[in-house]
Amino acid sequence: MITGKNYIGNLLTSTGRVKFKTFNPQENKENNVVFSEASEAEIEMAVELAASAFKVFRSISGIKKSEFLNQIANEIEALGDELIKIYCLESGLPESRAIGERGRTIFQLRSFANLVKEGSWIEATIDTADLSRQPIPKVDIRKMSIPIGPIVVFGASNFPLAYSTAGGDTAAAFAAGCPVIVKSHPMHAGTGELVASAIIKAAEKTEMPNGVFSNLNSSGIEVGVKLVKHPQVKAVGFTGSVGGGRALYNLASQRPEPIPVFAEMGSVNPVIILPEAAKIRGNEWAKTYAGSITLGSGQFCTNPGLILGIKGADLTNFIKILSEEIVKIEPTCMLHPNIIGAYESKKAKMQEQKGLQTSASFSDEIAINYGRQAITTVEGVTILKNTALHHEVFGPFSMVVQCKNVQQLEEIIANLEGQLTGTILAENAELENYENIVNTLQNRVGRIIFNGVPTGVEVCAAMVHGGPYPASTDSRFTAVGINSIKRWVRPFSFQNWPNELLPDELKNENPLGISRIVDGKRTTHKL
Amino acid sequence: MITGKNYIGNLLTSTGRVKFKTFNPQENKENNVVFSEASEAEIEMAVELAASAFKVFRSISGIKKSEFLNQIANEIEALGDELIKIYCLESGLPESRAIGERGRTIFQLRSFANLVKEGSWIEATIDTADLSRQPIPKVDIRKMSIPIGPIVVFGASNFPLAYSTAGGDTAAAFAAGCPVIVKSHPMHAGTGELVASAIIKAAEKTEMPNGVFSNLNSSGIEVGVKLVKHPQVKAVGFTGSVGGGRALYNLASQRPEPIPVFAEMGSVNPVIILPEAAKIRGNEWAKTYAGSITLGSGQFCTNPGLILGIKGADLTNFIKILSEEIVKIEPTCMLHPNIIGAYESKKAKMQEQKGLQTSASFSDEIAINYGRQAITTVEGVTILKNTALHHEVFGPFSMVVQCKNVQQLEEIIANLEGQLTGTILAENAELENYENIVNTLQNRVGRIIFNGVPTGVEVCAAMVHGGPYPASTDSRFTAVGINSIKRWVRPFSFQNWPNELLPDELKNENPLGISRIVDGKRTTHKL
Repeated sequence: MITGKNYIGNLLTSTGRVKFKTFNPQENKENNVVFSEASEAEIEMAVELAASAFKVFRSISGIKKSEFLNQIANEIEALGDELIKIYCLESGLPESRAIGERGRTIFQLRSFANLVKEGSWIEATIDTADLSRQPIPKVDIRKMSIPIGPIVVFGASNFPLAYSTAGGDTAAAFAAGCPVIVKSHPMHAGTGELVASAIIKAAEKTEMPNGVFSNLNSSGIEVGVKLVKHPQVKAVGFTGSVGGGRALYNLASQRPEPIPVFAEMGSVNPVIILPEAAKIRGNEWAKTYAGSITLGSGQFCTNPGLILGIKGADLTNFIKILSEEIVKIEPTCMLHPNIIGAYESKKAKMQEQKGLQTSASFSDEIAINYGRQAITTVEGVTILKNTALHHEVFGPFSMVVQCKNVQQLEEIIANLEGQLTGTILAENAELENYENIVNTLQNRVGRIIFNGVPTGVEVCAAMVHGGPYPASTDSRFTAVGINSIKRWVRPFSFQNWPNELLPDELKNENPLGISRIVDGKRTTHKL
Repeated sequence: MITGKNYIGNLLTSTGRVKFKTFNPQENKENNVVFSEASEAEIEMAVELAASAFKVFRSISGIKKSEFLNQIANEIEALGDELIKIYCLESGLPESRAIGERGRTIFQLRSFANLVKEGSWIEATIDTADLSRQPIPKVDIRKMSIPIGPIVVFGASNFPLAYSTAGGDTAAAFAAGCPVIVKSHPMHAGTGELVASAIIKAAEKTEMPNGVFSNLNSSGIEVGVKLVKHPQVKAVGFTGSVGGGRALYNLASQRPEPIPVFAEMGSVNPVIILPEAAKIRGNEWAKTYAGSITLGSGQFCTNPGLILGIKGADLTNFIKILSEEIVKIEPTCMLHPNIIGAYESKKAKMQEQKGLQTSASFSDEIAINYGRQAITTVEGVTILKNTALHHEVFGPFSMVVQCKNVQQLEEIIANLEGQLTGTILAENAELENYENIVNTLQNRVGRIIFNGVPTGVEVCAAMVHGGPYPASTDSRFTAVGINSIKRWVRPFSFQNWPNELLPDELKNENPLGISRIVDGKRTTHKL
């Protein structure tokens, strides 16, 4: 049952005065439950409890953390249809997506459970002493990663499960040994509360300290601002708009003690269709991209919003087929009236830009809150002159840029802001002729894709979901995959520490059998 | 020969109007050479050249980078006595220190050369495709670290070689594949120019792109400010005061595109002397610490500025011996009149604090610019009430805190700002009784030392020289040791990329034979 209350550790409370409801975009009406925004006192309690829980949680073994993470996955599974139902009511997304995203969420939790159970992720590095070294003896130094402290995670509107309450940021933080306070996304507060109840149950069953997790409701920005400014909060995870992410980054960097903010933000995910690809497989790519642009109503961070090619008959044909195919696709419901409102206004603003032509726009009658897909085109010289054309239009929208030649194409890529992804569509034989294009693109993005679509972000160790600003606030980390744990840890050295008092990870005996670097050599052996 | 000019890549220029000289603190007079501060045009040229060099340098092989780094070491060695002489003239430090620091600098360069020659540092991770996976096929994703772009390195006053022109930050950046623009420290501009000439020679001999390195003179803050704000600069390395580091951090975080600043800043490096240690080896520790506090005239980041113990006869004895021993040590020359001026004024300000007593202060006549060592004491309750007592006094100064009991000791540690190091002096048997103290200390520092001194920062893979703010601006990185390379790289993924066009590090054949994680298993084998 959804109560509308906040979880302050294992306590359900609602002392705040601000109330709100979530919205069903499919039926265009409010859902029933009344949510209570966290009050100042509740925020303070949640953070203090997290700081107190950190004293215990930071040293809990990998095995215990893996039990906790696996149990969260179990409890989310145990929520069954109730979770799927509320997810759909609060997002307008279809049941199949809800089930898929739940699967991804559970996979992420279990991936982190496996990671911390095995234990090598802490990057144990041992440099043993050499007392005979001249002119001064060498000390014994041993390094491993330790958690940085309580983390605030902002729920993401477009991933009510996989990047919200028990999503990637939270799972990575728990795996690291950091307590989490979730600033629940107001659009899916019910989904958030249900998932929060699963986390609290798992924490109790696996005997985690109370305060390891809290879930705070909010209807506006105040709760998030207070959390980011709280001195006991040590880092922030965010997925959303450039405006939102940058505001949090600014707040965090202006604190007396600045803290890291990993914000995964906007991206137009440029796609470059090379001449032979346009010529030989232009029709095929056009069909594939019509699907990618409209997938999830275009509400993915990796939606391909910008397609670049060399002007000519083949690109003209690609645009024609893409335009024909995209209007064949039935529009789908967007997440919220605010989202569709922003989509329609940004699309309109884009369409007002000089030199932009709309080559396709779904124009049949559609249900309220459904997003009309559109394809626009522009000349290379126009986008070089007008950076407003670089802006993301969050929704089923894409712009095809017709470049005069390869030099212009390279210049446009070099002048793009940072991006999550870049894609090259090419026939194998031609790719090696475009080394400059590939290198220039690589310098602007976090992930480069060959002959595919950017949508679909595999959860794996090799994934980088991030990139130069404004794709993220810090390109040195990824938001997806097990390596995202690195955002929430710091290296720590023990010097000449007594072996019996070292953490197991650094003991001579290597009782955990993890992979370590000892005097420059990687090994799982004991010293 | 030292010209006083700037190196803009391999070009020596001096178009600026601002001129300055360095200062010999031993003789209390200016040195001869007139240096020319970099003009706005020279700054612009250096950055544009770096951005252009980056296009080539970013993809240069590890072998070539190792040749470059080793050649820099060779060229620095080839500078011979001229370097040692100017180092001493500009720093007031003794020849032995100059030679030692040159050795450290060369060791760092060769360590990074070995790291990149071997190549595993790029953390290659491969998740192979699974086309039969349901419901959707798994794509092939391969990740490695790539350089982030041109780096600005600020020379450090207290390490004219090891943390300046070709110091740790620069060596790490070159190893990563990032061009470097050094904002030379005005106190040792001649040392800086000589080392810069060695880097330029090495770059030419090993055929690095021009602009991979520039060295800009400056007398004030303007050159640094312009560099940090330049859109083509992608990260900053700094060693110095909290005020200076924070100012750069603020500038960088307020840019349209924020960039990472790794600033290693202030620390009082708390040392906890536990009761049995004070009782059994108090005299010995007092003598050892008299040496550590005065080492290099106290001008090390890891100088022990705060010693905490439990009030009683043993601690009183420790303070007595420490006070007696420290005044036996001959004062030494400090780096610059500005440094000694700041030392004397901060010491005086500290001595004005209510409740602080000076138990030892060198009072014999000494040469100008020499630093008078001092030991002060304070009650635990006093430092709890007055955070001004937490401030670093950069120089041969330390404060002993007499805590009422263990609880108060723990409370004081918990309330300290972030620190580079924390040290525990203990008899083996007693340490396990102070788990809370150790845990609390661990949460405030980057490195914890057992029965030793914090001065002396070993250059090795397991070293962490960093810590929670204000020890550094980002506790997730270290400034010392080969892992400091992580500050200047970002992870990057290739998706479904043709094997023959992948970097060697990620090719199926593993031609470099590096350690990689393939489908979750660490291996040096080919696929």
